[in-house]
Amino acid sequence: MKRPSYIDNVEMWKESFDFFIEIKVRFCETDAFGHVNNTNAFVYFEEARLEWFKQKGMMKKWASKSNDAIIVTADLQCDYHRQILFDDRLQVGVKVAHIGRSSIDLHYLAVTSTGDVCLTGRGTMVQVSKETGRGLPFDQETKELLSI
Amino acid sequence: MKRPSYIDNVEMWKESFDFFIEIKVRFCETDAFGHVNNTNAFVYFEEARLEWFKQKGMMKKWASKSNDAIIVTADLQCDYHRQILFDDRLQVGVKVAHIGRSSIDLHYLAVTSTGDVCLTGRGTMVQVSKETGRGLPFDQETKELLSI
Amino acid sequence: MKRPSYIDNVEMWKESFDFFIEIKVRFCETDAFGHVNNTNAFVYFEEARLEWFKQKGMMKKWASKSNDAIIVTADLQCDYHRQILFDDRLQVGVKVAHIGRSSIDLHYLAVTSTGDVCLTGRGTMVQVSKETGRGLPFDQETKELLSI
Amino acid sequence: MKRPSYIDNVEMWKESFDFFIEIKVRFCETDAFGHVNNTNAFVYFEEARLEWFKQKGMMKKWASKSNDAIIVTADLQCDYHRQILFDDRLQVGVKVAHIGRSSIDLHYLAVTSTGDVCLTGRGTMVQVSKETGRGLPFDQETKELLSI
Repeated sequence: MKRPSYIDNVEMWKESFDFFIEIKVRFCETDAFGHVNNTNAFVYFEEARLEWFKQKGMMKKWASKSNDAIIVTADLQCDYHRQILFDDRLQVGVKVAHIGRSSIDLHYLAVTSTGDVCLTGRGTMVQVSKETGRGLPFDQETKELLSI
Repeated sequence: MKRPSYIDNVEMWKESFDFFIEIKVRFCETDAFGHVNNTNAFVYFEEARLEWFKQKGMMKKWASKSNDAIIVTADLQCDYHRQILFDDRLQVGVKVAHIGRSSIDLHYLAVTSTGDVCLTGRGTMVQVSKETGRGLPFDQETKELLSI
Repeated sequence: MKRPSYIDNVEMWKESFDFFIEIKVRFCETDAFGHVNNTNAFVYFEEARLEWFKQKGMMKKWASKSNDAIIVTADLQCDYHRQILFDDRLQVGVKVAHIGRSSIDLHYLAVTSTGDVCLTGRGTMVQVSKETGRGLPFDQETKELLSI
Repeated sequence: MKRPSYIDNVEMWKESFDFFIEIKVRFCETDAFGHVNNTNAFVYFEEARLEWFKQKGMMKKWASKSNDAIIVTADLQCDYHRQILFDDRLQVGVKVAHIGRSSIDLHYLAVTSTGDVCLTGRGTMVQVSKETGRGLPFDQETKELLSI
């Protein structure tokens, strides 16, 4: 596996994940090349990220219509290490790499059912105000929830 | 072409469409069988339908957050007459088949760049109240806009 | 619940399903109206259908590149009984309604985690030859596998 | 606009694009936050990339079943500068940043109909052998086609 710039030591990095969801690869996610289309990596990352946020107790806040804060994607990247096939069951992991004032850097890891790393990635999410569109600093409680 | 139950005379039915949009078939819409995945027919129908509604002047109303009325799908069906391949440019037509109190029946037709019918379909959309979730009768102006 | 034409008795029909998969509703499947976009009903149906085919031992045959037979969609329809929200966990059922020479009619049922029917549907799949594109009659073994 | 690491000078970088396709934003590409879901950025990039490859005369080769060479995604990244709304018509640009032995680095730029940069990105595509799965060096003709 080629080492992306956001990973220092591949083995240590892999072992630092302790949150995973299972994703079953859908047939409509494959393309005419016979494997999963590249765009679906980000669908898998989003599902893992939101499940991670939910476990931290954050989703209720961001999904509430009365709340001014939502969480948006600032950037995302993915390295494709191995093709993914229909019907595989991936373990997709998320971990926090850094928490800023109003942003959070997350890392992603997807492993096939045969134990091979197929995707790695990272990206920054930002809490913004629906009204102003600007970054909204995390309060202390949120910072603590996200750090655990 | 096998005749679906919602079509009386295929040739007359085809000629009754006068609104079409062009859809370029995306690579991520194909699947491992090498052709367009069945689920995308409904993506094409939706795009054609919304463009048709927009042309009728209806989208501004339904997309407005302050308006109580939205338009939702009651049912949809599609007949697949021919496989669709990456990079084809389809002509996707929409026409009104019937206007009810709060619902509208639309018919759909998709033709490949070689002039072959690949998809036909129909479905009922209903205007509902965001607040109550119940059907909201069309006012006279809307009925007239949709009928033209 | 309005009764679609392919259902005689809703309660008996519901009870006749004995194969279900669980589908977790993804955030990217919602749209700006705040609920699941109509096109995803057919994604859920396909996932349930392929899992059902797999359980019957059919997927290995159709997914094999050396085999001439594939299974394609002839028609599909869906009735939308209730909006579906992000993060719900649906039970999506499949059952065989009729087996023809080279085609099979399947019925679909999706139920929310609160036990409400949100989607019902049906559709015909046809076994075709990759080479000729024409219908390929099921052999006796396949008919038996599909009928159980 | 925040400057991503793959851009030296934003204005010069923007002006270096001379290939664009138009993408009409679909309703099913929005999510419950009311804007385009992040995963679709990569759908837009892929469409622009394949159209660019097609214009270079490369798609026929890679799409041919008898040819051993296909083009796969090694990595992708996207910076989200501005939310994208339903029904906008984006100009999505592609340009080559670097051509290696069997890989090509592409840059991406998406601009809203109001002229605002909404997405920038980059990624490496690799030509691989279907049979071996390994990198397949570009021949001289391909290198020249891709460089123009």
